Amino acid sequence: MPYVRISLRRGKSQHYIEALLDSLQQSLESSFDVPPGDCFQIVHQLDAHELRFNRHYGAGPRSDDFVHIAITAGRPRDRAQHSRFYRCLVDALAISPGIRPEDVMVVINTTEPEGWSFGNGEIARFPTLFTPEP
Amino acid sequence: MPYVRISLRRGKSQHYIEALLDSLQQSLESSFDVPPGDCFQIVHQLDAHELRFNRHYGAGPRSDDFVHIAITAGRPRDRAQHSRFYRCLVDALAISPGIRPEDVMVVINTTEPEGWSFGNGEIARFPTLFTPEP
Amino acid sequence: MPYVRISLRRGKSQHYIEALLDSLQQSLESSFDVPPGDCFQIVHQLDAHELRFNRHYGAGPRSDDFVHIAITAGRPRDRAQHSRFYRCLVDALAISPGIRPEDVMVVINTTEPEGWSFGNGEIARFPTLFTPEP
Repeated sequence: MPYVRISLRRGKSQHYIEALLDSLQQSLESSFDVPPGDCFQIVHQLDAHELRFNRHYGAGPRSDDFVHIAITAGRPRDRAQHSRFYRCLVDALAISPGIRPEDVMVVINTTEPEGWSFGNGEIARFPTLFTPEP
Repeated sequence: MPYVRISLRRGKSQHYIEALLDSLQQSLESSFDVPPGDCFQIVHQLDAHELRFNRHYGAGPRSDDFVHIAITAGRPRDRAQHSRFYRCLVDALAISPGIRPEDVMVVINTTEPEGWSFGNGEIARFPTLFTPEP
Repeated sequence: MPYVRISLRRGKSQHYIEALLDSLQQSLESSFDVPPGDCFQIVHQLDAHELRFNRHYGAGPRSDDFVHIAITAGRPRDRAQHSRFYRCLVDALAISPGIRPEDVMVVINTTEPEGWSFGNGEIARFPTLFTPEP
């Protein structure tokens, strides 16, 4: 039930962006309890002066490859799960497309379940309804 | 007091986008208790690889006409009102500009009232102050 | 710990946008208890039909220079602090780059602290860890 808004500097190849989205989605599914196929991703490519970030605040040093990942989730997770997800994500992005962990910023916010409609004008049913049968 | 961020694939006409925004705003006002004229809409047009979505998760099947509607509201509504709004919205979009209900995804999140300033450096006054006199 | 998404009509100069971002960041640091250097800003430039807003609702009159500032903060602030920030912000923007207070809309939402990772796959440490030593 998350959707994700990814912001990065303009100029990366389509292949790079697709690899980024793949690694992100795999990390959500493997470590953030997101059902398989629950994939909704929006990418904003920005000119240098449209994406400003401090190179050292809180972590870093950040480079021009900085990527800002804003996730809107359908329910809260505990601190341990956040921690696992962040670690899994930077490991996956380091492999493909090859982003330094220092360049990966994540912000997660949470909504109420009734705030989601996947389509057809209906409130989203409980996510486990969509997981594969055991 | 909502503002809306609409994401869709690049290439639709200005007329199509304006019709989409019209139907969305009318639905908010008629079924989500939004005051007349409380209209703030941002449209992000994206290339195919910048807008990735599962064609079948939770609803669908989704087509290239998929539209992702993220609404930030100033206060919570109950489940019944969400349900009415989703239904009203897909009915309106099906008529104009002609979007299949399967292609309409909505995510609503809520803020605190003091998180809004409509202008002039002032905290937003209570919304009913702006509704028409009876 | 905030990040900010700024939406405005396409066509302003790079100098104008940089001045806008400078004034915004200075206002956050001086009046919204944001640590120095905690700066993450994303700018969306939009065509006229991609940024629709009511010219009079809640404040105004708004002009084509309208700017929509969406702030995601890491913790709640009280009503008085919101009030100080909104005032400080419109004063700063009126000076540089020269935006009328009527054209400045702000929406602030709040996340949980564990929803932030500044980098390296780690949950953000408590913000005061990054403030300058007294």
